[in-house]
Amino acid sequence: MQGTVLYGPRDVRFEEVPDPGILGPTDALIRLPATCVCGSDLWPYRGLQPINGPTPMGHEYCGFVEETGSAVKSLKPGQFVIGSFATSDNTCPHCQYGYQSSCIHREFMTRAQAPLLRVPNADGTLVPTPDLPSDYLVPSLLTTSDVLGTGWFAADAANVKPGTTVVVVGDGAVGLLGVLSAGQMGAARIVAMSRHQSRQKLAREFGATDIVTERGEEGVERIKDLTKGVGADSVLECVGTQESMMQAIRCARPGGSVSFVGVPHQVSLDGGQLFFSHVHLHGGPAPVRRYLPKLIDLVLSGKINPGKVFDLVLPLDQVAEAYKAMDERRAIKALLRA
Amino acid sequence: MQGTVLYGPRDVRFEEVPDPGILGPTDALIRLPATCVCGSDLWPYRGLQPINGPTPMGHEYCGFVEETGSAVKSLKPGQFVIGSFATSDNTCPHCQYGYQSSCIHREFMTRAQAPLLRVPNADGTLVPTPDLPSDYLVPSLLTTSDVLGTGWFAADAANVKPGTTVVVVGDGAVGLLGVLSAGQMGAARIVAMSRHQSRQKLAREFGATDIVTERGEEGVERIKDLTKGVGADSVLECVGTQESMMQAIRCARPGGSVSFVGVPHQVSLDGGQLFFSHVHLHGGPAPVRRYLPKLIDLVLSGKINPGKVFDLVLPLDQVAEAYKAMDERRAIKALLRA
Repeated sequence: MQGTVLYGPRDVRFEEVPDPGILGPTDALIRLPATCVCGSDLWPYRGLQPINGPTPMGHEYCGFVEETGSAVKSLKPGQFVIGSFATSDNTCPHCQYGYQSSCIHREFMTRAQAPLLRVPNADGTLVPTPDLPSDYLVPSLLTTSDVLGTGWFAADAANVKPGTTVVVVGDGAVGLLGVLSAGQMGAARIVAMSRHQSRQKLAREFGATDIVTERGEEGVERIKDLTKGVGADSVLECVGTQESMMQAIRCARPGGSVSFVGVPHQVSLDGGQLFFSHVHLHGGPAPVRRYLPKLIDLVLSGKINPGKVFDLVLPLDQVAEAYKAMDERRAIKALLRA
Repeated sequence: MQGTVLYGPRDVRFEEVPDPGILGPTDALIRLPATCVCGSDLWPYRGLQPINGPTPMGHEYCGFVEETGSAVKSLKPGQFVIGSFATSDNTCPHCQYGYQSSCIHREFMTRAQAPLLRVPNADGTLVPTPDLPSDYLVPSLLTTSDVLGTGWFAADAANVKPGTTVVVVGDGAVGLLGVLSAGQMGAARIVAMSRHQSRQKLAREFGATDIVTERGEEGVERIKDLTKGVGADSVLECVGTQESMMQAIRCARPGGSVSFVGVPHQVSLDGGQLFFSHVHLHGGPAPVRRYLPKLIDLVLSGKINPGKVFDLVLPLDQVAEAYKAMDERRAIKALLRA
């Protein structure tokens, strides 16, 4: 088959790769009607994260079971399933504690920007939909695999509760779906920090009540103004840079909560600064598996439409253009149709 | 009167200082039957935290109200009161949120290693006992002002719940009272990391079920062994160094909680490491005022005896020896009797 391989900075190719197949007894092979490009794919694409030779890309997926390994019990060919970017057995102590993305059998997915995908730990990882979903629901279902699951974790880890004031730092797809998630959790006020009109618009659609265009020190001051000098109850850090992390921490009230869900790149936190900020800090790779049943249900029941983050749709073989459009911020997130 | 002044590394003097008096309308003047030396006093004493000229010392206090300012409504002369090392109005948004140690009117106390002390924000800061306490209860009541309040916050901020497994990093008085606090909160297993026999003994008395003498990497391995490879639900970091912080984070399970309650000294946390550790992190100056009513009640009802951390009792004028004994780790914590 053909799949997506990153060769170096801004050099991503759709080319012949080996067909995936069942390798181990817990594997499932699934056929993907659609896949997409993640904000985190841009780090290596931009040369900001080293790669070790040509690297197959893609970790967001949903699709139809084609074949299962001998130990797979809960799935059968033909079912439509969604899985997390991190596989999990869903039975180990970390999974039982709700942190499936730290599963002792975790494997980080890759190779999903392709028509066929092998998923290890299939029983613990893949969640089937009750029926085969309509095609128009596929983009939204696809978001539950990572970008929505991560935005949801951002809101949950920042302790969003009914009536609270929430700030979202970062207007990428994760940040925007963090806004949606905070709204679902009942936040009274949701401030999106964004300077891009199309993203501001989507943030409003997803439930943002306020937009702050300033960043850094000025951005923090604006949040303080909006909260009568107090700071926000919850802040979702959805970027992963030193600047965004400090901005998030400084926007939170003492005793408030800050989540961080993008892999931090060269971020270092000063212990004293963190101490006197008095915030709760929690983050990491989102335990998407914990949220999948609920998020799938929200999508299927039509209560949310997270697929709106896809503002560019391309055929899979134009994956290079998808990366380029996201890199240049012409697109929020690109959907790739098989 | 005479009070305690730090002049430089290991040069602390008990000498003539100005008598305190009521300066503002919210002040109270209190007479201290006892005071003590805090682990945090040792940082400047050891020259590891710069001081700006001769510095009056002491921030743990309880005693009898002598006089109150014109705006003080809830207190009257003769009452026995206890206050936090950080004063608070107990009415501002931060106080209402339970973070009185970030009160907008906060003042960090000093000058408490003396017989008389001026306390600003008296109404919001000082909590009176229902009756005058017996003298033998004074040491335990004194601990609620900081060292017990801080140990309690460490356990609370690390999310200690009934049935959980708790690790305490640091066997100073705060760590030992963190053990006591975790026990009060119903922890099933409390591991004290300590290599000093007298401290291990007190940790056991306070409720530790296990002692780990190893530190750093080896210490983390021992904790993993004790928890079947999983890690602890809650870890209390009660030291404030880079090594202890990393030890604490690495002892926690994914999704577990780490608190840090000692002012961090030259601590820097790598964002990526924190991200993949998957821990909850919370710390800062303990909001002792939030806990004071409960802690005072636990002491007065005889349910806890935190005053046991004082293993050296000296007259106030021998404060220099108290610092020396703690610096040399001959004493866990020194009580100074007026």
